[in-house]
Amino acid sequence: MSRRVASRGRRSLSEIKQLPFRNLRNPYPPLQVISSDEIEFIHNRSLDLLEDFGCNFHLDEARGLLKAAGAEVDLNSSRVRFERGLVEEKIKTVPRLFKLNARNSEHSLLVGEDNINFLMVASAPYTSDFDRGRINGSLETLIELIKLSQALNICHGCQGYPVEPIDVPVPIRHLEAGRAMVKYTDKVMSGYGLGRQRLADIHEINRIALGVTEEEFASKPYMVTMCNCNSPLQYDAHLTSGLIENAKRNQVSVISPFTLSGAMSPVTLAGTLVQQNAEALAGIVLSQIVRPGAPILYGAFASNVDMKSGAPAFGTPEYAKTTIACGQLARRYGFPYRSSAPSTSCAADVQGSYETAMSLWACILGHANFIKHTFGWQEGGLASCFEKVIMDAELAQGLAQFMVPIEINEANVGYEAIKAVGPGGHFFGSPHTLERYQTAFYSPMLSDWRNYEAWLEAGAKDASARANEIWKKLLADYEEPALDRAIAEELDAYVDRRIREGGAPYGE
Amino acid sequence: MSRRVASRGRRSLSEIKQLPFRNLRNPYPPLQVISSDEIEFIHNRSLDLLEDFGCNFHLDEARGLLKAAGAEVDLNSSRVRFERGLVEEKIKTVPRLFKLNARNSEHSLLVGEDNINFLMVASAPYTSDFDRGRINGSLETLIELIKLSQALNICHGCQGYPVEPIDVPVPIRHLEAGRAMVKYTDKVMSGYGLGRQRLADIHEINRIALGVTEEEFASKPYMVTMCNCNSPLQYDAHLTSGLIENAKRNQVSVISPFTLSGAMSPVTLAGTLVQQNAEALAGIVLSQIVRPGAPILYGAFASNVDMKSGAPAFGTPEYAKTTIACGQLARRYGFPYRSSAPSTSCAADVQGSYETAMSLWACILGHANFIKHTFGWQEGGLASCFEKVIMDAELAQGLAQFMVPIEINEANVGYEAIKAVGPGGHFFGSPHTLERYQTAFYSPMLSDWRNYEAWLEAGAKDASARANEIWKKLLADYEEPALDRAIAEELDAYVDRRIREGGAPYGE
Repeated sequence: MSRRVASRGRRSLSEIKQLPFRNLRNPYPPLQVISSDEIEFIHNRSLDLLEDFGCNFHLDEARGLLKAAGAEVDLNSSRVRFERGLVEEKIKTVPRLFKLNARNSEHSLLVGEDNINFLMVASAPYTSDFDRGRINGSLETLIELIKLSQALNICHGCQGYPVEPIDVPVPIRHLEAGRAMVKYTDKVMSGYGLGRQRLADIHEINRIALGVTEEEFASKPYMVTMCNCNSPLQYDAHLTSGLIENAKRNQVSVISPFTLSGAMSPVTLAGTLVQQNAEALAGIVLSQIVRPGAPILYGAFASNVDMKSGAPAFGTPEYAKTTIACGQLARRYGFPYRSSAPSTSCAADVQGSYETAMSLWACILGHANFIKHTFGWQEGGLASCFEKVIMDAELAQGLAQFMVPIEINEANVGYEAIKAVGPGGHFFGSPHTLERYQTAFYSPMLSDWRNYEAWLEAGAKDASARANEIWKKLLADYEEPALDRAIAEELDAYVDRRIREGGAPYGE
Repeated sequence: MSRRVASRGRRSLSEIKQLPFRNLRNPYPPLQVISSDEIEFIHNRSLDLLEDFGCNFHLDEARGLLKAAGAEVDLNSSRVRFERGLVEEKIKTVPRLFKLNARNSEHSLLVGEDNINFLMVASAPYTSDFDRGRINGSLETLIELIKLSQALNICHGCQGYPVEPIDVPVPIRHLEAGRAMVKYTDKVMSGYGLGRQRLADIHEINRIALGVTEEEFASKPYMVTMCNCNSPLQYDAHLTSGLIENAKRNQVSVISPFTLSGAMSPVTLAGTLVQQNAEALAGIVLSQIVRPGAPILYGAFASNVDMKSGAPAFGTPEYAKTTIACGQLARRYGFPYRSSAPSTSCAADVQGSYETAMSLWACILGHANFIKHTFGWQEGGLASCFEKVIMDAELAQGLAQFMVPIEINEANVGYEAIKAVGPGGHFFGSPHTLERYQTAFYSPMLSDWRNYEAWLEAGAKDASARANEIWKKLLADYEEPALDRAIAEELDAYVDRRIREGGAPYGE
């Protein structure tokens, strides 16, 4: 490393404190909010629903594959019914754990079992920050948010565009955004399953950035794509074709019913769990028919609407309960589990903070392996907020430190130190303290622990104001990850050519 | 009820939404952050410490009682050593669960096992609010905070003065504050063990307010007093005399070591757990010697200092881990468990919110039975913040709702409703929804779930600004709980006489 790089690295570290990037594991037992009998009840009613009612698949190819595998397909509608034995047989091949390979191998992730990954906010149409206000998403703010995902060690990567670049025309948006996603971060990659041509472009952009052959690309998981069920009980053609293409190439599909209890699923959490479990199983069966062992995530996003206004609400106690219960369901099947850390507040305020805390604690307690929207989600997903990215990063760092178990052994206890200090003494000067104090405790990025007088003298900035300073500092200090020059040229050549060709019309 | 009262009740309810007052229980299994072997290791090292090193008791009476019970008392110092068999024998009589009787029996509490009680902030020297700023505690703001503790259904009571009324001279402060505590709330009562005369006055004030005889008062738990260990390893004379007097009269002592890891206990959490467990056991043994079966709470308040500045930090990941581990220790012994929900932030901001969320989630996961400082703690306990009382009440309400288990049964699932709505439909008009929608979901007190445009039009108030409006509205709507006129007169007569007598000089 050149002296200049080393010195920049040090300066940056000394100014904004961060935990190092690492794979996180929750070492504690997952919380159980429903009994194992109740899990079996939900499982059985979900299978009943798939067997005697079924789920609609709007893509002909999907119905063909399902029929060939033994599902009952109604020729006059899109309805597919699944005999329970078929479901139970097909889901056996889902991998419990897989490695998700980043173009920088130090940023590769483990997905499944007790591994925890925190992902960036995705897909909002607006950004919000204290300097520019609430504005339409753009390529510029998209790139800034991608840079923050790279700069924040606690962020394991983007999952979808951190904001929708509305200033880029739809036919070429996936090309411009896709190029930005692989250029400004070397963390794990993602795509959208919004049409076969679009997904093929994204696969190709990622393959080029990785510097691998098509065969190598299809040999192991490199990227993750959301393939949501369109609740209640239907899979549309685009997302389903994405699911099929991902499975063919060994890339990861997240099969997430998105249910708002009372609107797209029953007003009860019990009914919501039954419906969304049935929906997820239907999509997972399809993935395993396409390719047994295709990596998937069991996704859940079960919140509720405010029954007075019909408005969706996130970060609610109901969301926390279903998030943990869905973790129990995922573990019943041995599926890796995707959840989210959403909030409803329209401001980077206390409400946003306690709502995300509610969501994120539930994700941790439910052992969600892949936590979307951890950083910056605001307004129920309509705005990606720069200040909230930092607030949420502080919360996630705290939870990462919470997941470091207390080390209990004789040396650590300091039995002799306790006796040596004795009644009324203090431990500041104890050798037991001096050997350990520098790394003993979590040191925050955003929190200010000074006393009132010192805080007042420093300008009495609240945490939101400090968050504004931190994201701007992170962007100012941002260093673009290395990308081989030949790869960069190939990437630009591909993207520029596809843009000249007009990109992909809607639905292709 | 007169028409006027009924109408006021309705209006008040319709304006500020609250969950009803109720006893809360955590129905989920407690989280385990250390193994049962590690719990035994901590237990054994704690007993070793009490046996071969001991703990100082500065009160002659305490040493006399301990010596008579078989402890080894050093005549030349305050040191008391406890043979492990003595500790294990004496702690057997601690009640696992007790009822704490309020003067309004509807506000009585269950303490122990899986019961959860949320208590008001206590003992801060300052108050903070957006209108008056950060000012010295006074009888006026004390009364306002007591009124908020009464008005907030999610608050189970005060535990200590919600702010120190600094404008009242010390010798009569406990009399004025004690009168305010029993007058403006009919929830559970508390006192301070700051000298024998003071505690006797508080016992008497509470006895009068309860309208019971001295014998009745001493027959069951009515009030709770903190009897902290002065860490490391010493019990001062005042708090220990309080512990003795409470045990004699069947009133509850909370035996809380207050340790900041790195300052008053080892810099490791393992060492902190060993020391504070030894300290708590020493005080608990004394309580059971005074009266076998005396109600106590095993208290823990183990946070850490910022090792760079020496400043205490609260709401840290370390605090969360020790809070849950101490719950495991408390359950190992079958002790009711007291913890706290502190934060460090100097402002009613996002930092205060995520810090209290960290603390309070840990209390819930660790099954803390008696959670002090749930509402309004700021600046590491130096200020009681009115806006934060409301922010924290919203968080506590959310957690109370989280602790209502998902009801899973055939009727709730709405299997037929799912089939009737079918693919692509919605559940808004489903009979299954219409029967349940009014009570299906949590309705918040502070959170604003409106969309951005509606929120903007309503003034774009953030949650802290709304919290400011809510506490003022709660005070404006406050209704003083009924107190029998004869009792009120007896109470005033007692307090006024004791004030004329000069109250209690320091230390008496």
